[in-house]
Amino acid sequence: MKRSGFERRRFLGGAPLVLTSLAAEAVPEPRALGVGRREYGDRAPSERSSRLFGQSATPGTGASRTPLQDQYGIITPSALHFERHHSGVPVIDPKQHELLIHGLVDRPQSFSMEALRRLPSISRIHFIECGGNAGREHRGNPGATVQQSHGLVSCSEWTGVLLSTLLKEAGIGPAAKWILAEGADASRHARSIPLQKALDDVLIAYAQNGEALRPEQGYPVRLFVPGWEGNVSVKWLQRLHVIDQPMMTRDEAASYTDLMPDGKARQFSFEMESNSVITRPSGGQRLNGRGFYEISGIAWSGRGRIRQVEVSADGGAHWQTAELQAPILSKAFTRFRLPWVWKGEEVVLQSRSTDETGYLQPSRDALIAVRGMREGPDGFNHFNGIKPWSIGRDGAVTHA
Amino acid sequence: MKRSGFERRRFLGGAPLVLTSLAAEAVPEPRALGVGRREYGDRAPSERSSRLFGQSATPGTGASRTPLQDQYGIITPSALHFERHHSGVPVIDPKQHELLIHGLVDRPQSFSMEALRRLPSISRIHFIECGGNAGREHRGNPGATVQQSHGLVSCSEWTGVLLSTLLKEAGIGPAAKWILAEGADASRHARSIPLQKALDDVLIAYAQNGEALRPEQGYPVRLFVPGWEGNVSVKWLQRLHVIDQPMMTRDEAASYTDLMPDGKARQFSFEMESNSVITRPSGGQRLNGRGFYEISGIAWSGRGRIRQVEVSADGGAHWQTAELQAPILSKAFTRFRLPWVWKGEEVVLQSRSTDETGYLQPSRDALIAVRGMREGPDGFNHFNGIKPWSIGRDGAVTHA
Repeated sequence: MKRSGFERRRFLGGAPLVLTSLAAEAVPEPRALGVGRREYGDRAPSERSSRLFGQSATPGTGASRTPLQDQYGIITPSALHFERHHSGVPVIDPKQHELLIHGLVDRPQSFSMEALRRLPSISRIHFIECGGNAGREHRGNPGATVQQSHGLVSCSEWTGVLLSTLLKEAGIGPAAKWILAEGADASRHARSIPLQKALDDVLIAYAQNGEALRPEQGYPVRLFVPGWEGNVSVKWLQRLHVIDQPMMTRDEAASYTDLMPDGKARQFSFEMESNSVITRPSGGQRLNGRGFYEISGIAWSGRGRIRQVEVSADGGAHWQTAELQAPILSKAFTRFRLPWVWKGEEVVLQSRSTDETGYLQPSRDALIAVRGMREGPDGFNHFNGIKPWSIGRDGAVTHA
Repeated sequence: MKRSGFERRRFLGGAPLVLTSLAAEAVPEPRALGVGRREYGDRAPSERSSRLFGQSATPGTGASRTPLQDQYGIITPSALHFERHHSGVPVIDPKQHELLIHGLVDRPQSFSMEALRRLPSISRIHFIECGGNAGREHRGNPGATVQQSHGLVSCSEWTGVLLSTLLKEAGIGPAAKWILAEGADASRHARSIPLQKALDDVLIAYAQNGEALRPEQGYPVRLFVPGWEGNVSVKWLQRLHVIDQPMMTRDEAASYTDLMPDGKARQFSFEMESNSVITRPSGGQRLNGRGFYEISGIAWSGRGRIRQVEVSADGGAHWQTAELQAPILSKAFTRFRLPWVWKGEEVVLQSRSTDETGYLQPSRDALIAVRGMREGPDGFNHFNGIKPWSIGRDGAVTHA
């Protein structure tokens, strides 16, 4: 492959870095005793990275988006994890909260948080993505930044009990085919999940990134359905109803059904397909002069591990394989990086991922050719088209 | 091996869980709209897990310990990461901060934070442990809880630049053998690191768990020396001095030298050896009746990956292999778990780890036989003896 702008080792010995040669050794001034210890720490006051809110008809509800442009590595800080809810964040007393399992089971049961924490546990690093993430890319008005265009995806270490453990405890009857999961929020958000997935890798999660779930993530306990659209990972989980067919709730009948060009809708399109986005440089940033830059971003797939990420710096004519940061985990963020030298010209940067099934992330055009353009306020779910960023001669990065 | 108390599958169908059978389906009461979105989230008010402070001659300085008994998985929440400093936490303006590299180099240079972030980056999940962690185990007065005995170790995802990248940029002269790293705290904490390690896996880290370093962890930039005693991972890093021999700073001459029984001291005993501790059940907790429990803990080694963790529930007569949670990463926490049924008898629980070099965590007696007893206020560094917990007939867990 032709190295169109990708020239490794050029950051060494080059002039572009902001470096100052010092002839003499600097001796620092004396400093006073620093500030004291804290029981529960906080970030430095000079750090301002924030979740971004859209407007909402009901104050406080809706979504907030992760500042992916500021994220390092693969773990999203819990304080900056995206949120999405229909009726605000309920305040739940974990000592009173119980999770009921009933329906087509031999032993209907209610689990306290203490009972859940006594069961065999498991930890997994997984992304979660709203089905509507990047839907504005499809419509062609994605917003200026990667937070606006792709900020409804985050990645954490989740700990809890396998749903299969609870189902074995309750004893599944022969007619059981689906499970309705219901939240304790005001809207009693509910989704149906097929039994096969429920017995595979679904978690009843009570912890995130080493501590209890954050309130916005379903405290004290949530469903976590790896690789599937976030809407099925019901937060503030209070009820699992084992049933023989899907319940056809609002969010699987009126919403989260993908309208196709012939007017029919895809339903239960659960899996989030292979995706990637360059987070640095990304929209709203500005390259500070010619020279070496590291192109960095995240890739993820609801179908398993990321196998490859390629980056183009010439509008898609040539693609260069990026380096993937280990560990490369199933249904988790994978950080990719590629050294690059900017010569001051206009450039379009983009990335495309391939997952372990061999599925290659499509272009926006290819996606629209299959699924059509969908206008209207409901947006477009499961958009995973390639995201291009334009760099102008002044170094400004904008949506291409 | 004889299953002394380890009986898998017994948690299913057993009576010990706090379960309530429900004859009818419960219908929840209506709920009001929840609370609103936040730019930077916080934990639930009902969560109270805290770092633990010891007394200190200079207010605010010293150490705070991670509540390992409350940790899930392998990522320590940054807000609960242990801290250790000699003169408090300096408040540093990242726009003004620079990192100087000088001494036996061809091109002495000073890097702004912006310059560091433009260089090729890398992310690694690693533990860091104070050399004095568990020193009170050695003296025989470890405190009641695992936080008191082992709370000076934590694990995060760290992101930054390889020190080798900076050293290549500066050009190492032929006489270079060691690197002095110096912090910007009031004590100008400094340690010498051999060049071979500096060129291996040492990071100049500016991010932790997906966001900027926390102030207690060295904001805006720290040295991170994987697998070595925490004291060498100099925080608030302001200077790297390339030299031809160790500088013999206070913390490598008067402290962090391990006195042996013959009166001589081990010096530059950098590596933290294979270790493990059961965090649940652990001291200060109480088993709530007979029945199924999951024994869970963490293992780590400064020499690489954990190969095996074994657990004994009969005072060391028999050992059962625990399950290790993937991913098993080099120089990182590895979570281990083992199902266990408590029959109400007095029990001593303990764990021992083996790392990829084949090194087996020793007993306290074996460690003392080699290194002797050391009295006095300075404590004992590099204690990695097996940690036993006693369980009484009343279920109370205490230091054995």
